[in-house]
Amino acid sequence: MANKLPKVFLGCDKAYDDADIILFGAPFDSTTSFRPGARFASSAVRNDSFGMETYSPYIDKDIGEISVCDDGDLELPIGDTDMTLDEIKGYALGIYRDGKIPFMIGGEHLVTLGSVLAASEVYEDLRVIQFDAHADLRDNYLGVGLTHAGVMRRCFDILGEGKIYQFGIRSGEKEEFEFAKNSTILTKFDFTGLDEVVEALKDKPVYFTLDLDILDPSCFPGTGTPEAGGVRFNDLLKAIYKISKLNIVGLDVTELCPVYDMSGCSTQTACKIIRELLLSLGGKDDE
Amino acid sequence: MANKLPKVFLGCDKAYDDADIILFGAPFDSTTSFRPGARFASSAVRNDSFGMETYSPYIDKDIGEISVCDDGDLELPIGDTDMTLDEIKGYALGIYRDGKIPFMIGGEHLVTLGSVLAASEVYEDLRVIQFDAHADLRDNYLGVGLTHAGVMRRCFDILGEGKIYQFGIRSGEKEEFEFAKNSTILTKFDFTGLDEVVEALKDKPVYFTLDLDILDPSCFPGTGTPEAGGVRFNDLLKAIYKISKLNIVGLDVTELCPVYDMSGCSTQTACKIIRELLLSLGGKDDE
Amino acid sequence: MANKLPKVFLGCDKAYDDADIILFGAPFDSTTSFRPGARFASSAVRNDSFGMETYSPYIDKDIGEISVCDDGDLELPIGDTDMTLDEIKGYALGIYRDGKIPFMIGGEHLVTLGSVLAASEVYEDLRVIQFDAHADLRDNYLGVGLTHAGVMRRCFDILGEGKIYQFGIRSGEKEEFEFAKNSTILTKFDFTGLDEVVEALKDKPVYFTLDLDILDPSCFPGTGTPEAGGVRFNDLLKAIYKISKLNIVGLDVTELCPVYDMSGCSTQTACKIIRELLLSLGGKDDE
Amino acid sequence: MANKLPKVFLGCDKAYDDADIILFGAPFDSTTSFRPGARFASSAVRNDSFGMETYSPYIDKDIGEISVCDDGDLELPIGDTDMTLDEIKGYALGIYRDGKIPFMIGGEHLVTLGSVLAASEVYEDLRVIQFDAHADLRDNYLGVGLTHAGVMRRCFDILGEGKIYQFGIRSGEKEEFEFAKNSTILTKFDFTGLDEVVEALKDKPVYFTLDLDILDPSCFPGTGTPEAGGVRFNDLLKAIYKISKLNIVGLDVTELCPVYDMSGCSTQTACKIIRELLLSLGGKDDE
Amino acid sequence: MANKLPKVFLGCDKAYDDADIILFGAPFDSTTSFRPGARFASSAVRNDSFGMETYSPYIDKDIGEISVCDDGDLELPIGDTDMTLDEIKGYALGIYRDGKIPFMIGGEHLVTLGSVLAASEVYEDLRVIQFDAHADLRDNYLGVGLTHAGVMRRCFDILGEGKIYQFGIRSGEKEEFEFAKNSTILTKFDFTGLDEVVEALKDKPVYFTLDLDILDPSCFPGTGTPEAGGVRFNDLLKAIYKISKLNIVGLDVTELCPVYDMSGCSTQTACKIIRELLLSLGGKDDE
Amino acid sequence: MANKLPKVFLGCDKAYDDADIILFGAPFDSTTSFRPGARFASSAVRNDSFGMETYSPYIDKDIGEISVCDDGDLELPIGDTDMTLDEIKGYALGIYRDGKIPFMIGGEHLVTLGSVLAASEVYEDLRVIQFDAHADLRDNYLGVGLTHAGVMRRCFDILGEGKIYQFGIRSGEKEEFEFAKNSTILTKFDFTGLDEVVEALKDKPVYFTLDLDILDPSCFPGTGTPEAGGVRFNDLLKAIYKISKLNIVGLDVTELCPVYDMSGCSTQTACKIIRELLLSLGGKDDE
Repeated sequence: MANKLPKVFLGCDKAYDDADIILFGAPFDSTTSFRPGARFASSAVRNDSFGMETYSPYIDKDIGEISVCDDGDLELPIGDTDMTLDEIKGYALGIYRDGKIPFMIGGEHLVTLGSVLAASEVYEDLRVIQFDAHADLRDNYLGVGLTHAGVMRRCFDILGEGKIYQFGIRSGEKEEFEFAKNSTILTKFDFTGLDEVVEALKDKPVYFTLDLDILDPSCFPGTGTPEAGGVRFNDLLKAIYKISKLNIVGLDVTELCPVYDMSGCSTQTACKIIRELLLSLGGKDDE
Repeated sequence: MANKLPKVFLGCDKAYDDADIILFGAPFDSTTSFRPGARFASSAVRNDSFGMETYSPYIDKDIGEISVCDDGDLELPIGDTDMTLDEIKGYALGIYRDGKIPFMIGGEHLVTLGSVLAASEVYEDLRVIQFDAHADLRDNYLGVGLTHAGVMRRCFDILGEGKIYQFGIRSGEKEEFEFAKNSTILTKFDFTGLDEVVEALKDKPVYFTLDLDILDPSCFPGTGTPEAGGVRFNDLLKAIYKISKLNIVGLDVTELCPVYDMSGCSTQTACKIIRELLLSLGGKDDE
Repeated sequence: MANKLPKVFLGCDKAYDDADIILFGAPFDSTTSFRPGARFASSAVRNDSFGMETYSPYIDKDIGEISVCDDGDLELPIGDTDMTLDEIKGYALGIYRDGKIPFMIGGEHLVTLGSVLAASEVYEDLRVIQFDAHADLRDNYLGVGLTHAGVMRRCFDILGEGKIYQFGIRSGEKEEFEFAKNSTILTKFDFTGLDEVVEALKDKPVYFTLDLDILDPSCFPGTGTPEAGGVRFNDLLKAIYKISKLNIVGLDVTELCPVYDMSGCSTQTACKIIRELLLSLGGKDDE
Repeated sequence: MANKLPKVFLGCDKAYDDADIILFGAPFDSTTSFRPGARFASSAVRNDSFGMETYSPYIDKDIGEISVCDDGDLELPIGDTDMTLDEIKGYALGIYRDGKIPFMIGGEHLVTLGSVLAASEVYEDLRVIQFDAHADLRDNYLGVGLTHAGVMRRCFDILGEGKIYQFGIRSGEKEEFEFAKNSTILTKFDFTGLDEVVEALKDKPVYFTLDLDILDPSCFPGTGTPEAGGVRFNDLLKAIYKISKLNIVGLDVTELCPVYDMSGCSTQTACKIIRELLLSLGGKDDE
Repeated sequence: MANKLPKVFLGCDKAYDDADIILFGAPFDSTTSFRPGARFASSAVRNDSFGMETYSPYIDKDIGEISVCDDGDLELPIGDTDMTLDEIKGYALGIYRDGKIPFMIGGEHLVTLGSVLAASEVYEDLRVIQFDAHADLRDNYLGVGLTHAGVMRRCFDILGEGKIYQFGIRSGEKEEFEFAKNSTILTKFDFTGLDEVVEALKDKPVYFTLDLDILDPSCFPGTGTPEAGGVRFNDLLKAIYKISKLNIVGLDVTELCPVYDMSGCSTQTACKIIRELLLSLGGKDDE
Repeated sequence: MANKLPKVFLGCDKAYDDADIILFGAPFDSTTSFRPGARFASSAVRNDSFGMETYSPYIDKDIGEISVCDDGDLELPIGDTDMTLDEIKGYALGIYRDGKIPFMIGGEHLVTLGSVLAASEVYEDLRVIQFDAHADLRDNYLGVGLTHAGVMRRCFDILGEGKIYQFGIRSGEKEEFEFAKNSTILTKFDFTGLDEVVEALKDKPVYFTLDLDILDPSCFPGTGTPEAGGVRFNDLLKAIYKISKLNIVGLDVTELCPVYDMSGCSTQTACKIIRELLLSLGGKDDE
């Protein structure tokens, strides 16, 4: 019998029923205002995970020790934002209700809204932790309310005041920073105060959304709206390990845009971040 | 006084009021189903026209001899298809009503719909000639009616049977080719029959839409959905000169995607096609 | 239930037992003498087939009408040529013995040897038709006998004189062209004489190997050893339809190297060629 | 009325007469010794500034609060160094004499000479602060005196001993470092001593020239002569804010080479640096 | 003893004294008006000739049968046009006087002037055959007389009326085409009339200059000023074989710009054209 | 007499007999498991060293002060691992026996084995210091023993326990880290403990192998298996200066893969590291 190469992300080949975490792709980027292409991210990380080890020397743990199902990519109606968010919400809702953790790979950041909508139906008093270069708090952009630049504003509409924790923000309109003052907990540039937030949220259900453009473009050029002055990979890694101690009920990693990742290093970096997220979140019940 | 480099396409610096042809960009690609990026086309041709002569040795004519206003790019709400088409329609309508020719640079092919909608309000018994690799006759795509893959189906809804002439078509679903049999005049692969169409339409107002992916990918790799087996540049040039003898009331050139044009040759090719279209259409009244 | 994007080539999702043709990848390129990277070809065509229609307007047939199983990629020991060829041979042999057609996507051209070895154990008086820019008749290259530059020489060792039909050859050492005179039937540059060969072989089992570098680099830059002066896509398409009338017992498409396919057009071209091969070979028994 | 996209850098659309700072491009790179292409920099930053906010969360200020005129690009005679420098000098001189600040976007570093020549005619006891990876102190290069590798040597010829302050220098011939000892104030590798220089120059007219290759290639790969071991973006930002407290009478940003900026991140980084320079320099009189 | 890879173009390792043809590079592109980078051409063809056979199946001849010395690249003062042309002229003059054929690899097209100046000192009644997309007959460009866009105008100044034969010209200012009418023999677009020219010049010393942008960008994207609508590789090959029957006293191949040759195919095409030129010109005395 | 550009790395033009250090390339990458292309590294650094100074401002020393022979590239039988290692071993052995230092530029990391085999025949009690992202301690990979992923395991077989010092390791299978515990001295992530190792080995012959992927991908994207989280350039530089105080009898720099180095910065970084290694190792006897 011939051996075959796997078609899933990094050996995440558990069946849905056997898995704690359900990995899936949401290939959508229609509202990207600058450079589209994030739709190809989930396919890219799946392919390039072939070049990566399943073992983490950082936390001495292997994908083989946890239970993850890579359930493939949703088929989304490119160009229709409402239908796309409905699709994502519906699919994620099933996972939440099955008591599993949906781990979505975007796509542009707007896809987060679908999963947060679903989570807010299942979990009471939900909090969102966002790592991002952009505040994403625009009320509308050229008259459009549902865009990647306003995804956190829409989450605010759902969750209300003081429920969104934003870290690493280094870009936005003046109005967004003003809005944040009374509406979210926004930390500029880095992870200052993360320890306190982790402490404060230890009994809450938390949704974690990671816009990879929080990384400095030197570490992560392959994204639609690069912003110089970001955090470095090792800083992000440490912050992720902190987050992983919380009760993360759902999460996503967004805005890898492989089109601008000529060297492939951004895709590899995204793979490693996803691996470390999986490893630090997975198998916690068994410990 | 210092000389400055122009900010318009290839010396097309006439004022709106003095121009016969109004060139403008429609940077939109939200419904692109495969590879987005056509939003950057108008900006790219404007920049790279710097590397091209204003004179055509093909038809011995110079941009200096005609009257074109490059009116810049529309600001379109990326991600909102309806608003985008309204914007394009409204802007084009003004040009048609001023008795001028709107020459739109896409963007994805759906932008054509805005200009055809406007033209059909001004010109009776309008015909459309389409050069394209794809039939673009899908009724919907994953449940969405307004997409680049269905732009000609929507034009058909406006114009009715037998008004759309399609050339070069080499890709589509079986259903699209079936639909075309009783609805449009579709020529597969090349320009067979173009002379007869030009003869038949000589008294009609004609809108001309050129999807650049009609070109073979060897000539034009920089497009969202390349299809091997297309026409060559010189064939397209000859077809354009034929078309230019008609009463072209509006036109567009779509689907240059600079993101995939690493060598810059697709952009240069688009520049030359636009130049030849301008030169062969412009100044006809003065002859 | 959420719709998912398929993980197979262009809807080729039949089960092995239900399929007439078994598509599989052989990701190996260790003997490539100039520019490696063909190992990524099967993964690339699978991904990018998403951007292509399942219907061929050339022969009015759809993938839905035939029975193909995309069985995934073999896991091959990169760097060990002997083991790799054994793996391929073993896997292909099973397919031949099941009365199905193995359709291998390389990988470098040496992978052909594994499948031809298997075919020659099952089919008597086997012939090989090769479309290629290179003669591939070197006895050895820097002392190595098993290389992509000598794959046809090794096939000759198995099949004997006058059994290999080479078309499109435009590169090689002088010795290779000398050797061909008494050993193979070699046509330089194009498909001259293909009709006669098809006529002569109509009662024979035929293995068809297509090295995509037979195409001119303008049509197909994404290959390891590009050679200016090749055939064009439409010429290749016509030749393929001719070949498809023969009793093709096995086949392969090799030497797409996505690393050098910046625009993605070579991958799309490979996708279309594979589609047309599948459509013209598939479902013949049912006619 | 249709909204149009702006053709200026980041909303810098004041009229010349109303502006304090005049932004302009100097697209010239004929003396580049290694990799040319900096001629495309001003056009690239203008285009890509579309993807950037006008607001700086670093210093809480918006482009709307200051008065900048983007006056476009000079048309320079590529290949003729003397004429090019004359053009730049003449144009800059007008700006200096109008009491405004010329902000030039190179081009290669030699363009600085034109603006420094003009500044030295208007301002007495002019000093130059240079941020750069290269000393640029060669007396000649293959017999040529006017080259990017010698631009600071030519400035030295104009300004005399001890007037040029060089920071971040990490490449040059041994002779250049020797020359610097008695002629300029040269700091290797970083910004050590910048505070003291800022203090010492607080009453002097200062020309500031920023060769972007001072940045580490990880932050800024898109440049003609990358040099590993440079400063990071945040370090540069801090140094810029210090500089901005001085009486900057003219300035430039040079050596972005978009040809090697495949990801677009270098261009975005240059955009942000220009934005922060504009914001920290602009509107100071009004404070 | 270890075998080493050669450092010369395609086995052209004869000593200067033993060679009939002296191959050398002229890495200069300072007057390029659009996209520089041709300075890297000679280095690129030397490197990539490793991937090419020494044998031509077109004319059944091998590099081993002729005598060529690859003498390396001239060290030219980038940015100083006059000195550069002097260097080239001086070096070429030595070769002409030694009764050998200088074969220069550009660089931009202006380098031709240096070699033609030298040839005109040695050979009486010299003629020039030019294959090119551009007329290159500008008297000056932005006030500069010595530019790649005017190289043939300068050759005209040396040789006088009716001595320059231009083929394939498809771009230029109107004035250039006017000038050509009474000054050169200009054929637009293709090689029409080449047989007659070859016949007419059979007793004359001829300098042959090949600007590779005569090729269609589909065949040859890697050039500074691509022009759609060019000749194809096989047409150029046939024209080259015709030219090779003349008394070619010197020649050059210019305007490969590897920076825009992402796939490497343009460099490979240039390698093959140089190979075929060498093989068809070399060893003629021995026949 | 015309000046010619050199064909050696950065002015390293001493004759073999006059040199202390022999630089040579080993262009081999057949066992690369993820992305091949390192075979082009030695050619790339030779070409691009043209853009770099011969002088180091870090250690105030110039290539002109030391004696290095760039002996070119070995011609290796791509695809045959055993023969390749034999060739490298044989060639390196000659250099060791001549009392010179072989400085090999890979190629993939497996090439190290050839030079270590040779060194171990000449030097007793040899130690190896490895800077690398990967442990390279796999016993076999898909059944193959000789691969880049296992090169240090093979060195261990030769040298025995406790002779290999590994720094910067951040990727590997769990089994490799387990194996290292009793077999090598492995430091994860960085250079912790390097000072102690340098002290401990000061009387030993040391072979130094540098896999450039120890660098963070932000500094060095151009490699086959990038791993986020690596050391930065300045850290590596400091570690190199420490190493250079040891009795380095042979060394190599491997895994630059120019195919993925679109900006050229990785190649420039490799050039600078090689320069600093040469300068810090060369001429020590003369001091």
